[in-house]
Amino acid sequence: MTQNVIIIGAGAVGMTVATFLSRHTDHHIRVFSSDTHTAYSQCGMPFALGSHLFNLTDLIVKPRRAFIDMGIDLHLRTTVNNINVNNQKVITKDGIFTYDFLVIATGSIPFISPIPGDDLDGVYTLHTLSDGMNIEKALNNSTKAVIIGAGSKGSELAACLNKRGIKVTLIQSTSQVLPSILDPDMALIVRQHLTSQGIRVITGTRVDHINQGKGTHVGSVAAGKEILPADIVIITTGVKPLVDLAKDAGFDIGPAGGIVTDKYLRVKYNGKFLNNVYAGGDCAQVKHLITNIPVLIHSGAAARRMARVIGKNITKKTSTLSTYPPTLHPNVVAMEGLTAGSVGITSQTASKHDIHVISGSSKGYTKAGYYPGARSLYIKLIFSDTRLVGAQVVAAEGVKERIDALSLAIRMGAVIDDLLRWETSYAPPVSMVIDPVTLAAEDRQKKMWK
Amino acid sequence: MTQNVIIIGAGAVGMTVATFLSRHTDHHIRVFSSDTHTAYSQCGMPFALGSHLFNLTDLIVKPRRAFIDMGIDLHLRTTVNNINVNNQKVITKDGIFTYDFLVIATGSIPFISPIPGDDLDGVYTLHTLSDGMNIEKALNNSTKAVIIGAGSKGSELAACLNKRGIKVTLIQSTSQVLPSILDPDMALIVRQHLTSQGIRVITGTRVDHINQGKGTHVGSVAAGKEILPADIVIITTGVKPLVDLAKDAGFDIGPAGGIVTDKYLRVKYNGKFLNNVYAGGDCAQVKHLITNIPVLIHSGAAARRMARVIGKNITKKTSTLSTYPPTLHPNVVAMEGLTAGSVGITSQTASKHDIHVISGSSKGYTKAGYYPGARSLYIKLIFSDTRLVGAQVVAAEGVKERIDALSLAIRMGAVIDDLLRWETSYAPPVSMVIDPVTLAAEDRQKKMWK
Repeated sequence: MTQNVIIIGAGAVGMTVATFLSRHTDHHIRVFSSDTHTAYSQCGMPFALGSHLFNLTDLIVKPRRAFIDMGIDLHLRTTVNNINVNNQKVITKDGIFTYDFLVIATGSIPFISPIPGDDLDGVYTLHTLSDGMNIEKALNNSTKAVIIGAGSKGSELAACLNKRGIKVTLIQSTSQVLPSILDPDMALIVRQHLTSQGIRVITGTRVDHINQGKGTHVGSVAAGKEILPADIVIITTGVKPLVDLAKDAGFDIGPAGGIVTDKYLRVKYNGKFLNNVYAGGDCAQVKHLITNIPVLIHSGAAARRMARVIGKNITKKTSTLSTYPPTLHPNVVAMEGLTAGSVGITSQTASKHDIHVISGSSKGYTKAGYYPGARSLYIKLIFSDTRLVGAQVVAAEGVKERIDALSLAIRMGAVIDDLLRWETSYAPPVSMVIDPVTLAAEDRQKKMWK
Repeated sequence: MTQNVIIIGAGAVGMTVATFLSRHTDHHIRVFSSDTHTAYSQCGMPFALGSHLFNLTDLIVKPRRAFIDMGIDLHLRTTVNNINVNNQKVITKDGIFTYDFLVIATGSIPFISPIPGDDLDGVYTLHTLSDGMNIEKALNNSTKAVIIGAGSKGSELAACLNKRGIKVTLIQSTSQVLPSILDPDMALIVRQHLTSQGIRVITGTRVDHINQGKGTHVGSVAAGKEILPADIVIITTGVKPLVDLAKDAGFDIGPAGGIVTDKYLRVKYNGKFLNNVYAGGDCAQVKHLITNIPVLIHSGAAARRMARVIGKNITKKTSTLSTYPPTLHPNVVAMEGLTAGSVGITSQTASKHDIHVISGSSKGYTKAGYYPGARSLYIKLIFSDTRLVGAQVVAAEGVKERIDALSLAIRMGAVIDDLLRWETSYAPPVSMVIDPVTLAAEDRQKKMWK
């Protein structure tokens, strides 16, 4: 039976759901987005800006034409004004549309604490593809950049712009880089890498002003007691979920600021989860596997997985709905020669939630010690009693795969013995004889003996 | 209480046990070995021969002096003639020594089906460091090598010698390269890589003769209908456990040809496992986790893990012995630009043991599709019903870590749903948005729907 599916948002979640449904159903699929572009790799923008090896437009997943050819009814530059849940209708400038299923994938917008001068020319956020294109233009006339916010995006962007030959200052109000994914000891290794590349890293310092230079263009940034010259300023202080539309429609918004979802990614309305309204991506909150509290996930990989769950659930009977399990939020941050990764909780997050943890750490290498080109590999494992609840890896390579392995380990309930018994493989050009993960587990075990 | 520990074999197992005990006990530790060298990285020899970036002697784990400084009583070039189990004595040319604990770590020797001409000058095996040194000398006067046996060592060596500028022919009697770790479809990708590097790969062909050239030196190899010119021939057709001494002493030898061990790595004598005799490394057989039959493991990583178990058990009370769990035998083979890895069982092994399996495969990339330098990554997952029992990965990078992740997954009892729910991390320079492992699991799931 053909049904009407309305998807709000043409990003990774929206277009993946649309594609999935066009392949597996004959539903009529309408997508509304206020954006000019369909899904593109947001995560790829720092890298496109940092090199001339590929362009921002290469980040667009599929040409618009491809979606239209699939029979998807695409309404770009079209804001949804209102959702009427009781009548199952969506109100836009193009008209009023009825839905059998509704998918809310409105994404996020940059989160900025107001800074005097943040409205000057040359001050940007990096969130949409249009932002990227504006920054690309501006960079051609820039030699000195100040990046405000040393989270994942800011740290990647700092490394990329530095590689492009721009003098970069990276500034963070709290005391370390990558505060939400790394503990201070691991963050220090990242900081040393960025510094060794020629990036100036300032932490524990708030930006007081963005100062005018020539005309209405930025000229410098005042932070602490310093004036940092800048012909471009990029603010990367995080994002917040875009939920006004959902809130106005009466859907529950949770403590993390996202749309409340259950494990099927259904949305809550008047105290119950609806079988025909789903939310996913940056605008939806899901439970964290370790802390059990709702969190927001900003990740293309999560977006794709959520979209698959939503797509399947729209094609299925309620009794056999697919689930999106509680998250461990695995992350990797690639910074030109060094990658940092994290999964589960950090010691800092644990302490915030009164979870007592013990860690085990190791410094190993990416190859056999005698093998030319062996690089340092740092691992930190976080245990609650004997159970693995978090992991951090920092190295030139082999980070993403180890974070993934540890993501699976945590999800499957691994305890220290599982890690100690773990049979790892070995060849001198690709590993040490004993994997650094095992060494970190052994370090944790020593603490047990004390 | 100081006790006498005798270790037979100065390889990875022997010297790791010796080092462990010297750190954690005040036992008197005697090591006997007929070899001239203490532990070295056997796995590193192909790579030392293939480049001039490091030497064979760099493969020696520690200088002999370091072991002597630890108080280890080292008897090199000393064959143990006899073990008297009832009197707990070991008989050597240096005298008769009493033991409280005995560790048998005699390793393995090359396995060769006799080939006419295999006694000519210029025909080698690559097993001991001395073998490596002899080959290194011979290679200086060689331009054409024939390598007999396309297992792990033969394939690595072929890639390494080819890189050194030697014209290499790699010949295998059965129908594919790496037959014990890869299925034919995955082995084909490896073969194509080796061929693309300029190596001639001949499979399904037996070597009939090794022919004389100048004087008593090898000149060619006759195989099938061809005469392959060769000024050096290296036979890499596997190894067999060195168990004569253990057998003569009355210890049980198992169906795989190795010394029978239990999960504590204790050795069997007169129908029972002894609390004071252990075996580990190439000479010991252990159970395979999937097939439940005894297998031999040739791996530096396994040797080190076995040694730790033996070391701990010698320091402990019987009631709290450490265990070496059934093996999944993870393997990686590094071939200059391509790595192949395997863990658990292949489809071929499954068929040999009447285990019905279904596979899921994927071809993915090492980076986001648009990212410069993205390389192909092939994954094959083997399932028995829904349970993961094996995995194979072939790619330029990211192989070892994925094999390790899948090794843990199999050991923890992962089923297809665990792989589908697996949260993987993502950054464009280091991964696709969806990991190829997930794609292979999805491929398997499609087969379930049929």
